[in-house]
Amino acid sequence: MRAVDIIQKKRDGQELSPEEIRFLIQGYSNGKVPDYQIAAWAMAVYFQGMNARETASLTLEMAKSGDQIDLSPIQGIKVDKHSTGGVGDKTTLVLAPLVAAAGVPVAKMSGRGLGHTGGTIDKLEAIAGYQVELERSQFFAQVNDIGVSLIGQSGNITPADKKLYGLRDVTATVESIPLIASSVMSKKIAAGADAIVLDVKTGSGAFMKTLDDSIALAQAMVDIGTEVGRHAIAVISDMDQPLGHLIGNSLEVEEAIMTLRGQGPADLHELCLILGAHMLVLGGKAQDEADARRQLEQHLQDGTALQKLKQLVAAQGGDASMIDDPSRLPHAGDRIEVAAQTEGTVAAIQAEHIGIAAMLLGAGRETKDSVIDLAVGIDLRKKVGESVRVGDVLAILHVNDKGRMEEAKERVLKAYEITPQEVAAKPLVYAVVTKDGVQRFV
Amino acid sequence: MRAVDIIQKKRDGQELSPEEIRFLIQGYSNGKVPDYQIAAWAMAVYFQGMNARETASLTLEMAKSGDQIDLSPIQGIKVDKHSTGGVGDKTTLVLAPLVAAAGVPVAKMSGRGLGHTGGTIDKLEAIAGYQVELERSQFFAQVNDIGVSLIGQSGNITPADKKLYGLRDVTATVESIPLIASSVMSKKIAAGADAIVLDVKTGSGAFMKTLDDSIALAQAMVDIGTEVGRHAIAVISDMDQPLGHLIGNSLEVEEAIMTLRGQGPADLHELCLILGAHMLVLGGKAQDEADARRQLEQHLQDGTALQKLKQLVAAQGGDASMIDDPSRLPHAGDRIEVAAQTEGTVAAIQAEHIGIAAMLLGAGRETKDSVIDLAVGIDLRKKVGESVRVGDVLAILHVNDKGRMEEAKERVLKAYEITPQEVAAKPLVYAVVTKDGVQRFV
Repeated sequence: MRAVDIIQKKRDGQELSPEEIRFLIQGYSNGKVPDYQIAAWAMAVYFQGMNARETASLTLEMAKSGDQIDLSPIQGIKVDKHSTGGVGDKTTLVLAPLVAAAGVPVAKMSGRGLGHTGGTIDKLEAIAGYQVELERSQFFAQVNDIGVSLIGQSGNITPADKKLYGLRDVTATVESIPLIASSVMSKKIAAGADAIVLDVKTGSGAFMKTLDDSIALAQAMVDIGTEVGRHAIAVISDMDQPLGHLIGNSLEVEEAIMTLRGQGPADLHELCLILGAHMLVLGGKAQDEADARRQLEQHLQDGTALQKLKQLVAAQGGDASMIDDPSRLPHAGDRIEVAAQTEGTVAAIQAEHIGIAAMLLGAGRETKDSVIDLAVGIDLRKKVGESVRVGDVLAILHVNDKGRMEEAKERVLKAYEITPQEVAAKPLVYAVVTKDGVQRFV
Repeated sequence: MRAVDIIQKKRDGQELSPEEIRFLIQGYSNGKVPDYQIAAWAMAVYFQGMNARETASLTLEMAKSGDQIDLSPIQGIKVDKHSTGGVGDKTTLVLAPLVAAAGVPVAKMSGRGLGHTGGTIDKLEAIAGYQVELERSQFFAQVNDIGVSLIGQSGNITPADKKLYGLRDVTATVESIPLIASSVMSKKIAAGADAIVLDVKTGSGAFMKTLDDSIALAQAMVDIGTEVGRHAIAVISDMDQPLGHLIGNSLEVEEAIMTLRGQGPADLHELCLILGAHMLVLGGKAQDEADARRQLEQHLQDGTALQKLKQLVAAQGGDASMIDDPSRLPHAGDRIEVAAQTEGTVAAIQAEHIGIAAMLLGAGRETKDSVIDLAVGIDLRKKVGESVRVGDVLAILHVNDKGRMEEAKERVLKAYEITPQEVAAKPLVYAVVTKDGVQRFV
């Protein structure tokens, strides 16, 4: 087998066999296939695409390229959740205790990641004492004991995906749906999930700007699940504005706690119920979505979900009293108001600008070595559909270092689209994609 | 400027600026742009193409990447000729003395090259004593003196093209018309030609299998010429069978001599008149093609073209008496007949098989280090349109080493397509492409 023949085959629009995909990915991993051949192949894939079989083969090869976690010591159906990334997305912090309270085991490894704020693991470190590293056996034991553990990703998960992503990033081959889908799914499969609920963001603040692209990506990921025997469902949710009101690490923990108390912002509350309901159904703990939703609402109302978060924090060495009193979480020294300069109705809040503003304040990593300030962030006081007068507070910046504050302020103002016209309400969820097809709500 | 942005621009179908193309090619040459980015870019070009401006920019950047020959010490308009490669193509050996006899200066550097037979320079070495290496000043002086010199390519011509071609070869990006066109033209431009006549082969034995592709390639090359101010014309000629009867180095010199005597095979004779006529017109030595053709026919008839070859050989130290007596050229020890096994009419002779047969006998290089046997080759006794009975001699192999002779014989038999039906005559030239458009003859 020669790499050049495989590249040509894909270039000419033919389907690659599992053996050919294995040859490329294993060869790339062990250095026998050079990066220039993989770059040419990735560009051919960009133009010619890959069908579900090819995409599944690629996913499995990448999943097999490193450690593969065996979650079988944990009882029950392990359901993972993945979001394609958005600003203010703290759903994992809500969902992990919430679905665990309903009996779905949550054995979740999360990353830190580059971006506007830290990853779930950074956020959890806002809770004093919380240990993000556990031995594998401890991790399993904790999930069997209290039903939930959230730890940092360790070991060597999908190194072929890391290498390929690095190459795609510098060869303009990131924006390929089968390549994005296989990258996401390879990590989930290597992490051992039995079933996966995907939250695919759509809109100006998402990687996928259009609904059609978002649905196509969702379809590709669900198809991979079907091909490799892991049940997957994707929810297409709005990212034409950040999720919830608070952006920043400590701030997002605070908002997650409020949501677990049943006092969260409407969009975050609703999205957690929708995603959580799918997790319960896939995890075999509910007959249907309506049943699942009733259970989850009950757990929010009676305090068992919040209780589960406290249990989780305590089990991993954290200060559980901070959950009862979020004012004890790290707080920034200054609060700076950003006032509206025009009158009208908020039509959109460009999440990308808000994310960059949060990063400018120190909430996220610009490079791998950046140090995160867990306390800083942004509180959005006005969201889409609300009316605004000149001088109204649009947002409050939580600031420690004022060095780039003005820049952050400008970004926030730029993010707000304020229109004199009326603004029609937008749905929170646009579609759900399952192996049986696409259900659109718009 | 970042390479990834340029790749993305091309990926998305936009035109690259001359500065962007310069950034890529200069960066690739000096190692600042890595091969994986160029590989991705080449694949994007494969899918999105390049317009005439972009192709010309690429051509000029590659031409400028190494030595650029300044032919201005030679008087007159220097017209070069380039063939896209075919089996049995010895037109350079005929055309150089022929158009020089008509007053067009021929200062031609040729390669050895990999392939079925050697390049023009290998063929010339069949003439005892012929020196293929001349000092630049000697080369110029000889052309000013006798009007013609044929030497080997020396120096560092278009290293960027060499590097890019090597990469395309292993990334399935060879078959891109703008990349092929710029590769050919960059070498011609670096070699200093004022005007260029291109012989683009079409058919089963050519790189371009279809007439449309051949015309598109011709158009791209002519357009480059127009963009960079070098007049170019392309002739699309048949390669559904080898050109002439003889294939092999010494054998091709012999057939060229016969053609200069006016006794060459009809197809070779005619193609040389057509290509030569365009060279005379571009070189300002004829008013139109008809005028040019009359002059060339005259030079073949009165012996001045043959005389010019003898002058050329003598000037470069070769044994000119071999031109008068071609039986003194190297000859193979054995002549092995290949007999027809079926009856009918020759419909085609797949040039690729004939080429491989010649290589199996030792006439060409399989690898860069192969040693050529100048004497061996193939004499095609039957050509397209001729009728054949079982046992008729189709071809005669000129053999020294019989090691792979049987394999060569099989290839020759495989090359001959013999049909019971009548075979319609095919044109030798299908189209001519000039800056003013395409003139089709079929």
